[in-house]
Amino acid sequence: MPVPAPNLYPDFNVIRLSHVDYRVTDLAKARAFYVDTLGLQVTEENAGTIYLRAMEERGHHCIALHGADEADVAALSFKVFDEEDLDKAEHWFKARDIATEWVTRPFQGRTFRARDPWGMPLEFYARMDRVEPLTQKYALYKGVRALRIDHFNMFSSDVDGAVAFYNDMGFRTTEFTEDEETGKVWAAWMHRKGGVHDIAFTNGLGPRLHHTAFWVGNPLHIIDLLDVMSTTGWLESIERGPGRHGISNAFFLYVRDPDGHRIEIYASDYQTVDPDHEPIRWDLKDPQRQTLWGAPAPRSWFEEGSDFDGAEVKEPALKAQPIIAP
Amino acid sequence: MPVPAPNLYPDFNVIRLSHVDYRVTDLAKARAFYVDTLGLQVTEENAGTIYLRAMEERGHHCIALHGADEADVAALSFKVFDEEDLDKAEHWFKARDIATEWVTRPFQGRTFRARDPWGMPLEFYARMDRVEPLTQKYALYKGVRALRIDHFNMFSSDVDGAVAFYNDMGFRTTEFTEDEETGKVWAAWMHRKGGVHDIAFTNGLGPRLHHTAFWVGNPLHIIDLLDVMSTTGWLESIERGPGRHGISNAFFLYVRDPDGHRIEIYASDYQTVDPDHEPIRWDLKDPQRQTLWGAPAPRSWFEEGSDFDGAEVKEPALKAQPIIAP
Amino acid sequence: MPVPAPNLYPDFNVIRLSHVDYRVTDLAKARAFYVDTLGLQVTEENAGTIYLRAMEERGHHCIALHGADEADVAALSFKVFDEEDLDKAEHWFKARDIATEWVTRPFQGRTFRARDPWGMPLEFYARMDRVEPLTQKYALYKGVRALRIDHFNMFSSDVDGAVAFYNDMGFRTTEFTEDEETGKVWAAWMHRKGGVHDIAFTNGLGPRLHHTAFWVGNPLHIIDLLDVMSTTGWLESIERGPGRHGISNAFFLYVRDPDGHRIEIYASDYQTVDPDHEPIRWDLKDPQRQTLWGAPAPRSWFEEGSDFDGAEVKEPALKAQPIIAP
Amino acid sequence: MPVPAPNLYPDFNVIRLSHVDYRVTDLAKARAFYVDTLGLQVTEENAGTIYLRAMEERGHHCIALHGADEADVAALSFKVFDEEDLDKAEHWFKARDIATEWVTRPFQGRTFRARDPWGMPLEFYARMDRVEPLTQKYALYKGVRALRIDHFNMFSSDVDGAVAFYNDMGFRTTEFTEDEETGKVWAAWMHRKGGVHDIAFTNGLGPRLHHTAFWVGNPLHIIDLLDVMSTTGWLESIERGPGRHGISNAFFLYVRDPDGHRIEIYASDYQTVDPDHEPIRWDLKDPQRQTLWGAPAPRSWFEEGSDFDGAEVKEPALKAQPIIAP
Repeated sequence: MPVPAPNLYPDFNVIRLSHVDYRVTDLAKARAFYVDTLGLQVTEENAGTIYLRAMEERGHHCIALHGADEADVAALSFKVFDEEDLDKAEHWFKARDIATEWVTRPFQGRTFRARDPWGMPLEFYARMDRVEPLTQKYALYKGVRALRIDHFNMFSSDVDGAVAFYNDMGFRTTEFTEDEETGKVWAAWMHRKGGVHDIAFTNGLGPRLHHTAFWVGNPLHIIDLLDVMSTTGWLESIERGPGRHGISNAFFLYVRDPDGHRIEIYASDYQTVDPDHEPIRWDLKDPQRQTLWGAPAPRSWFEEGSDFDGAEVKEPALKAQPIIAP
Repeated sequence: MPVPAPNLYPDFNVIRLSHVDYRVTDLAKARAFYVDTLGLQVTEENAGTIYLRAMEERGHHCIALHGADEADVAALSFKVFDEEDLDKAEHWFKARDIATEWVTRPFQGRTFRARDPWGMPLEFYARMDRVEPLTQKYALYKGVRALRIDHFNMFSSDVDGAVAFYNDMGFRTTEFTEDEETGKVWAAWMHRKGGVHDIAFTNGLGPRLHHTAFWVGNPLHIIDLLDVMSTTGWLESIERGPGRHGISNAFFLYVRDPDGHRIEIYASDYQTVDPDHEPIRWDLKDPQRQTLWGAPAPRSWFEEGSDFDGAEVKEPALKAQPIIAP
Repeated sequence: MPVPAPNLYPDFNVIRLSHVDYRVTDLAKARAFYVDTLGLQVTEENAGTIYLRAMEERGHHCIALHGADEADVAALSFKVFDEEDLDKAEHWFKARDIATEWVTRPFQGRTFRARDPWGMPLEFYARMDRVEPLTQKYALYKGVRALRIDHFNMFSSDVDGAVAFYNDMGFRTTEFTEDEETGKVWAAWMHRKGGVHDIAFTNGLGPRLHHTAFWVGNPLHIIDLLDVMSTTGWLESIERGPGRHGISNAFFLYVRDPDGHRIEIYASDYQTVDPDHEPIRWDLKDPQRQTLWGAPAPRSWFEEGSDFDGAEVKEPALKAQPIIAP
Repeated sequence: MPVPAPNLYPDFNVIRLSHVDYRVTDLAKARAFYVDTLGLQVTEENAGTIYLRAMEERGHHCIALHGADEADVAALSFKVFDEEDLDKAEHWFKARDIATEWVTRPFQGRTFRARDPWGMPLEFYARMDRVEPLTQKYALYKGVRALRIDHFNMFSSDVDGAVAFYNDMGFRTTEFTEDEETGKVWAAWMHRKGGVHDIAFTNGLGPRLHHTAFWVGNPLHIIDLLDVMSTTGWLESIERGPGRHGISNAFFLYVRDPDGHRIEIYASDYQTVDPDHEPIRWDLKDPQRQTLWGAPAPRSWFEEGSDFDGAEVKEPALKAQPIIAP
């Protein structure tokens, strides 16, 4: 098995992914995309930032959109079980000779920040302001009717390294793609919260954020979004789909925000809470791992991603880009 | 308006498209496709032919599969209102100097046969054996859960001519694509039964049958079919989709039978019974007419079709093939 | 067969049901129901009347809501094929010693008005103002996403008589319930446009309008409407459903407007264009004809309906009301 | 808050509910229900027992059907994190003066058994035989297409006591109904695996099992099951639904197996992994907590349940049964 055995007793307890801080170059345009089109709910907004959440969420936000001169990703945030886990996290990073800091973030308690060995900015907190869930406020449902944030997917120049690092942190691998020729891991999906993934890594120019995904109840909401986007001026923002991934079995759609940040709309998933849950291995040469139904993805999907603030991008370790569409 | 005014008082009354006679080179393989995978119901089968129908149909069959050395289409059949319409049809064709004949077909009454001016074989009848509808035999639903045959779509070397001919016969145009440079009709959708179409013609090497379409209740049945086909050895038979056509607003999927005959699975349609129903014009340069959501179609979809028995294929009148995918 | 043979060659050609004129006691409340909750589109509104249509419709309106002191139904309207059919209709009614009149209606051409023998007010026209269909204006879809008006359903004190009368007019019976003890027809569904029905009659205190139905694309839209109505103050307006009728095979929901006018939301139907389409007979004692899944209907559904302006209501001919719920 | 604060650091780690052992009086009939109608997959069967699982499950079974003279429930089983948790569990029960035993069960490792203070038989294990998930074996999907077992729901004569006991064990309350007059908890939903519940308790003659629930991907599968059951002789086995619960927001259907064991088909749920996830309080007088859309439930649903082998049933502490339907 080219992925490491899961670390079932990690040093600190990450509960789930929490939110992403996007920098966007035009807040009004970004609002038109995320709020008016996707239908995410505004928890709070001010001159510089819009805080959004999905329908069932009780944390203050799952996306913060910050007006900026350049578009990138300020940080990926994770919720830990309790305050003590934050101190354990600090110790864990320091033990790996990684610089750490405590930062102040609105709407949340003590927040710990560090970068992973490839420069990806991570933040951890235990408590965020709680807000009312909108699950049964059915009059508010619109757009794609997203229920919650589901996962982050990253390009990595060193997937084997990333899997080892996040496995140590307690993320468990559910599916992975192996490059049979080199025996190396091409891509991996890893979870904490009991679904297919909270985070995933794919070989490529990295670190970069490939996409942030939102969970929706069924495929018809995705079809509705396609109909609306294609008839309201957002046709060019539809990048790939609808389709089903072999990996994760998700019914998916990929769209791009006005700055090119990629959002996946994601339906179907499966439960992975068993500690003896076995990872599924896919062969890099099997095109159905990407699209069960065989339709190719566009080149942009394989190549484009969002930079992380302050992270230097490197060429990937593996070279054979498995592009199956022109 | 480049399409003729509808002939609201035609000389004979075609009710609807009825069925297609496909010749297939391997009846067992064809059965595996149409019955075991698509889920069409067998009304009757013998050594040489399998007669199929969809769930709500009360006519004996909507597809006949005939074992043969070569795959092609023997005829497209239409149901007329009453016996007298058959005689009127004979008169109509003779008035246009078209050879006509009366033929015997199993499970149906008097049957009139002729070819259109481009050689496409047409058959007309008033009465076919009636069978029990399976609409509420829910235990029998399987595959894509097709409810009824919906339409035929043909390549035509002379779309303007075909529209004029079938308009005279009483088919009314609901949507059409105009080649702005030549002012000619590139494609047209024409109906008798009150939906978007019973027949359609697209500019191309013709006459050839592009596809036969089946109506299903909602898009999730199409997603189910994709999941089953892609995991039971039929991946290569998925040609295009799922997607939504701008024209007709259909949610669609195109699959190919083992001989390459193309089947469309078709959901959504609209009612067109008003005699003053206005045709919708699309510009040939508008890619959303083909795929509202922007995904390209494969080359095969633009080029491949089923030959009609005994019909000589000709180069199309118009040349600029609007292929938008490689 | 207790229903008459269809009149395949009627004296005038009714194309389809067209629209209903409801009188409502509070236009603002009615607007909150039909527009804000059901999601019907406003074609035009003035101080006294709101004209509404569903998404795919090209006729000016399918419901007119007229502010009035008392709630009732002013007329049921039908579209005929051409102007000549209006004159033929006048002749047809006069031949039956029925008073007729020509009336002026906004947004439509020559309009003929008469009452059926039980006093139900009917209007016929050939041409109504045509408006743009909203089928692909996906940003406008809301509420239950109704696509078109589907049918009227009436209480009748003389169902056998009504079936004979409308059969003469060219409506064809698709399904009916027979009271085995008396051999009489308890209820009948009759169409012109090629679906299960344009009109239906059920034994009861009549003539009264039981409901007007709208066609939606799939059952999930009905579930969405239930979620919205039950959480926005319309809980008491949900009367029956969701469920599936044995008769018509429809997935249904019944809701009541603020004046009690009943609206059915209706998904699934089947094609009935064949002149030899056989009616389906149901036994009055078979509860699955009403609800295939067995859930009972409330008493209000069996007893309450909208009065027709100027029509005297009579006790029904048949007495054994098949109420299966308290 | 009438429910106790969650025990975030329980003495042993229950991962999730695992399976139920039903005793049934006719294995062939039970098979016709669970396998042929619901579509559960047979992992293994022998003369006396059928072991079933849902499509995505990797544990050997989620239901065992044991042929027996009388129908009841032999045990409810739970999976713990590791072997050590079993020993901790033994200690935990012994500390509460509860008799414990180690039992041998086919297809699973060391198994610990005890009864809760009201006599309900519980079993715990860490390792069960792992089998291949059928998630992408789409040709095998049938019936209601259940993906996994979701929860157990019990009648309890002492809900306050049950909530305290299982809260100590680490189950966290997500929703509860309070009887305002007495200040007592009428019903509670409690989870371990991160959804709305693994177990729930409702005031009533107990302990008895009200139902076992299975998770399905969307409401249309439930509609499909209703169509099939109502037309294949299982009409009387449909007890309640479809509808949406206010509590849990689930789209639900309740059916009864040939011995009366109740099965819920359950779609929609929400994520509850946050340790600070706040329980939702419902008022006993609010009928929407049971059915958001207002339709009443039948009396049987409130009164009937499955006995547990060897458990003495007691009258409930609270008396006002909130029956809202006859």
